[in-house]
Order: sequence, then C-alpha cells, then structure tokens
Amino acid sequence: MKHGEPWPGIIGKYGQYLPVTKEMPVVTLLEGNTPLVCAQRLARQVGLRAELFIKNDALNPTGSFKDRGMTLMVSKALEEHAIGVICPSLGNASASAAAYAARAGLKCFALAPEEVVITGQMAQTQVHGAHVFAIRGSYDDCTAIAQEIAADDRLVLVNSLNPYAMHGQKTAAFEICDQLGQPPTYVALPVGDGGNITALWQGFKEYAKNRLPRMLGFQGTGAAPLIDGQPIAKPQTLATAIRIGRPSNWQGALDAVEESGGLMEKVTDDEIVAAYQLVAGLEGIFLDPSGASALAGLVKLSRQGFFKPGENVGLLATGHGLKDGYRAAIAQPSTVVYVENAKEVRRALKNLR
Amino acid sequence: MKHGEPWPGIIGKYGQYLPVTKEMPVVTLLEGNTPLVCAQRLARQVGLRAELFIKNDALNPTGSFKDRGMTLMVSKALEEHAIGVICPSLGNASASAAAYAARAGLKCFALAPEEVVITGQMAQTQVHGAHVFAIRGSYDDCTAIAQEIAADDRLVLVNSLNPYAMHGQKTAAFEICDQLGQPPTYVALPVGDGGNITALWQGFKEYAKNRLPRMLGFQGTGAAPLIDGQPIAKPQTLATAIRIGRPSNWQGALDAVEESGGLMEKVTDDEIVAAYQLVAGLEGIFLDPSGASALAGLVKLSRQGFFKPGENVGLLATGHGLKDGYRAAIAQPSTVVYVENAKEVRRALKNLR
Repeated sequence: MKHGEPWPGIIGKYGQYLPVTKEMPVVTLLEGNTPLVCAQRLARQVGLRAELFIKNDALNPTGSFKDRGMTLMVSKALEEHAIGVICPSLGNASASAAAYAARAGLKCFALAPEEVVITGQMAQTQVHGAHVFAIRGSYDDCTAIAQEIAADDRLVLVNSLNPYAMHGQKTAAFEICDQLGQPPTYVALPVGDGGNITALWQGFKEYAKNRLPRMLGFQGTGAAPLIDGQPIAKPQTLATAIRIGRPSNWQGALDAVEESGGLMEKVTDDEIVAAYQLVAGLEGIFLDPSGASALAGLVKLSRQGFFKPGENVGLLATGHGLKDGYRAAIAQPSTVVYVENAKEVRRALKNLR
Repeated sequence: MKHGEPWPGIIGKYGQYLPVTKEMPVVTLLEGNTPLVCAQRLARQVGLRAELFIKNDALNPTGSFKDRGMTLMVSKALEEHAIGVICPSLGNASASAAAYAARAGLKCFALAPEEVVITGQMAQTQVHGAHVFAIRGSYDDCTAIAQEIAADDRLVLVNSLNPYAMHGQKTAAFEICDQLGQPPTYVALPVGDGGNITALWQGFKEYAKNRLPRMLGFQGTGAAPLIDGQPIAKPQTLATAIRIGRPSNWQGALDAVEESGGLMEKVTDDEIVAAYQLVAGLEGIFLDPSGASALAGLVKLSRQGFFKPGENVGLLATGHGLKDGYRAAIAQPSTVVYVENAKEVRRALKNLR
C-alpha cells in the first residue's frame, strides 16, 4: 500500500512550472507538501462565517515558507558555480539559506540587524554554519549591503530580489489549489518585503485560470509602509519577520492586492497576541507572530462582517512558533504549578476545574 | 495536476492497520507523511559505507514523532468521553498532547521535572493552554504520579503506557517502507522510555513481512538503563528527551533489538554535539540532541567497520532542533561579526576565505 510516489520536493513536483533545466543539480530538503488544516473551532469562535483553512508552511524543513524559494535559488547558484550565497534576514530567510547552502556545500553569509542577532533569532542560521554579520542598522540597511556585496562578487543574493525566489514561493499557491480542488475565495498572509504575496498571486494566476482568490495582506501597525504609502525608517511590530520599512517588492505586493480585488490592513501587537493565543488554544497550531498577524487581520475583518457563508479562506502560516519560543512563553499566561507528589497534584486539579 | 489525494493524517492513511472504528472522531493535525532525506554528504564524511536516509519526523505538526501516537490517543479519549488527558513529559510528549487536546477541546495536564520547566522546555506546551505541573523529582516520578492520577479520574494517560501510542507511532515504519520501497537494512533511533523502538519494530513486523530491518537503539552514556541492565536514579545526558532512568517499555525495547538482530549502544555528550554539528553543517538538517544521539551512535559503529556497501540505514530524526534552539546556539562556535557598512563586510569576507 503506497501513497503514490514519495514527495520529491517542489522542484521535482512542479518543475514544469519553474524555470529549470534537466541539467540543474537539485538541492532539496523535500520542502513543500505541507498540510492544509481546516480550522472549524477557530472560525466558529471568531464568527468568521466563511470556512477557514490554515496552510501550515511552518512545517517546511527549516520551519518557514522560505524553503520553497531557497531550494530553487540554491540549486541555481550551484548550477552557476557560485561559491556561496548571501542574504539579508530577520531569521527565516537566513536559516533557510544556511540549511540549503550546507546541503549544497556552498558558503552562506547572512546579514541581520544587531538587535535580531542579540535576541537569538539567528541561532538556527548559525547552527548550519553560516557566517552572520550583525549590522548596526535596519533590515533595509542589510538589504542594501547584501545587494552591493553580491553585485561585485561570486556570491548569489538569495532574498526576494532573486527572481527564483518568486518561482519557488508560488508553489504554495499550487498546493493550496491541489488540496482544496480549487483556489479559496480569499488568501490571507502577512506582508513584509512583499515577495510572498507577489509570488502567491503569480502562482494562482498560473495554476488556476478560471477562478482566482482575493489576496488579503496584513502588516503590523508600526510597520505598514505599503498601507501608509511611504517607507518607514524605524518599523515596529511584534511580528519580527515582517518588521520591514522599505519593502523590496513594493509594486508587486500592491498589484497582487489590486488585481485580485483584495485589500491590505494593519494589525496591532495586541491583536497579534490575541490571534496567536486563539489558534494555539483552539486548533493546536503554533504560529509565529507573523502568521498570527494574518489571522489577527482575519479576525478584524470578520468582526466587520467581511466574510460570507459559502466562502472560504486560506491562511498562510509562514513560520513556526518554535522559532520564537521564548517570547511565546512570555506571551502566554503562566499555568505552572509547583508540586511534590500525587496528592498535591490532585488538590491542584480540583482547583483547576 | 494533483499529487493524488491530500494526505489525511496517519489515521486516515493507515486506518486499516490501527485499532479504530468508523465512528471514532478523528483528531488530526495532518501528522505523518514526513520526508525521508538521503544524506550522501554526511555518509561519505563519516565513512559510513552504507547509504543513509534521515526520516525527518521533526516535521510533524508539533515538531516531534509524538504526534503519530497522539492523534490516535486523543481521538480515542474523545470517543471515550474523557474530560482531558494527562502525561509525564520532558517536552515533546506534552507539547503534542497539549496541541491535540486543544484541537479536540479537551483539557491537558502535563507533569515535568522542575528543571525541565525552568529551562523553558515546556513553553510549547503552555502555548497550547495546558496546565503544567512542575514536579520536584525525576521524569520517572512524573510517570508514577500521572499513572496514579489517571487511574482514579476521567483523565486519559497519553504516554507510551497507553497502548494506542504504539499503534500510532508504528506508522513511521510504514512510511519508511513506502518511501524506500522496502525496509532498510538498519533502523537507528534514540531510546528513552523504549516506546518508540518497540512501536517501530512492531510496525515493520506488520507491514513488511519478508524482510525486516535490524533495530539499532542509542542511549546517552549517563542514561543507559537498558544497556546497563538496571534503572538509574539520576540519569544524565545532553539529550534531554531520552533522559529517563526507568523506561516504561523496558522489555519491548530489549525484544525489538533481540528479535531483529540489532544492538544498543551508548554515546557521550561530546559525541552527540559532534554529530549534531555534522548533520547541520553537511545536510542542512537541524536535529534535536536526541536525534543527534542516534546519529552519534551510527558514526561510532561506522568507525568500527560495522556497515557494509550495499546496506542502507534509516535514521529516525525524532524531534526538531528548534525545540532546543538556545542550547543549540551555545553548542555552535560563534560566527557573528559586528559591522557597520558594506566596506566592513567586504573586509571581513576576505578574512573568511
């Protein structure tokens, strides 16, 4: 009894939709093929009316959607005889770059704002042997430096400015279509540098010509340049992965929303924490704050009566809550009871009911 | 273009091999279907001679193999109208129990040694709203208390003493067979309370009657009761998930090794760290220290000329390194360079080549 052929990773699976040749060496950790989980209890709790599906891209090999683009970018880098890859990162991109570069035998250089390094968000990147540069500046400064270094060196830039990123990331749209049988009415996701919403929209246009979803993008209140209509020098939001003031894919993100008839909305840190706790407590899914920001946006729209019965929403869970585990523990009300024996446990249990 | 039907979780997929009825409500986060990654660079580096495949069960929904047993145990608990579940844990089991209980609308109570709570290993469990009891005692004390509480209350014990745990966990063996086309020559995994090696061996016996693998179990040097032949009062190993002095499935684990013609071996903390760094740096896979302990054992056996060309080994990656991220960062030599601009990055790059 077999479940078809084993999943070959997104290049093996969707190669016909990607700019690849048969000669290209494929560097894969068997990314993609992530679950699409129906979240009935959550939808009911927030009065969503539409059906809610969570595309759990946190279950990619390095814990985020970045692996979809990275398999293609690193494969191409290897084909092009690069000596290494370089990227600006807030944690997810460089963890993915470091892992795929390790598997390919390439060097990896990651540039992150100093504060991101200090708070431990680059630990996963370091585990895979990447060289981390802590920049006294913003993410946008990291992007500018990485672009400059990559331009005059044999290092390939592996962020969303690399065109292969979009091609890899669009496969999340393909999978959602395959899993639902057709695109959902709406797709909701967090928007940082704008690369992912651009990629998913492209994916739906390529894969599902007859019916297209409306794209709903969410940004943190203090880091919403695409909604405010201007770059932000010091972006602030609890959702670190989308704390970006000068999105690299500005126009692509706006186009995705406009062409699809969607919208963008801001969410506050409090709304993010509330959404984060809701989905963890009702569905057993541990989002990172960025994924939670998209859910927070859905909750907000839902309260405005935005969704209708018969519609459905695909929420992209972009990264695993485990990436931000210690902050997570703080965000949750403490439920620890210190005890010594079964008798004390039993007494405590009575109080808990 | 579809990749067959969407993966339905292990109960939907392997129900005919599990003690389930059609009436049972299925509580699933779409666990299972995890990648089997060929680790050629690593095998070559350590002179393994045999082919090495890593079954990445860290990519289950809560980041460990425990989800396989939990979907079945929590589904059964719901069918039996339990009010909640209870388990002793070192982090993985209770994170899984808390997530599945959340999705089922059941209460979850977790018992962990105080030191495990203090070091943050229960954060994921707390995120999903479980009640955590920090016990001034060992994991084995937690097990005893959980058994006592579950016996006289409407709480279902969801550790490896629950027979459904074994049934769920055996599906990892099924998937390895499906992915390779047949069982590998050897299966390597960490052994803590002995439940998983018992389950996998059972799985191979049920699913692959003609050819069976040899089971290789690994324990930390200071926490190897099954190898020492007696319980250990204060077990010590860096691999926290297998820091267990009195395994609940003592006989099952020994039987799996004996019946299969396998063996058990001890590994030191230093060997675990070395293995952990090897696989992260050569294959881009971020094991937890327990998974790394099994790899450390393979490296050790390999150096003794244990494996032969033409053989293959399936290594079960039981948990995600992200679960232990902060320790991970410490285990890795620091590679952070503090810089201010592209010029400084370029200068640093020269020194790194």
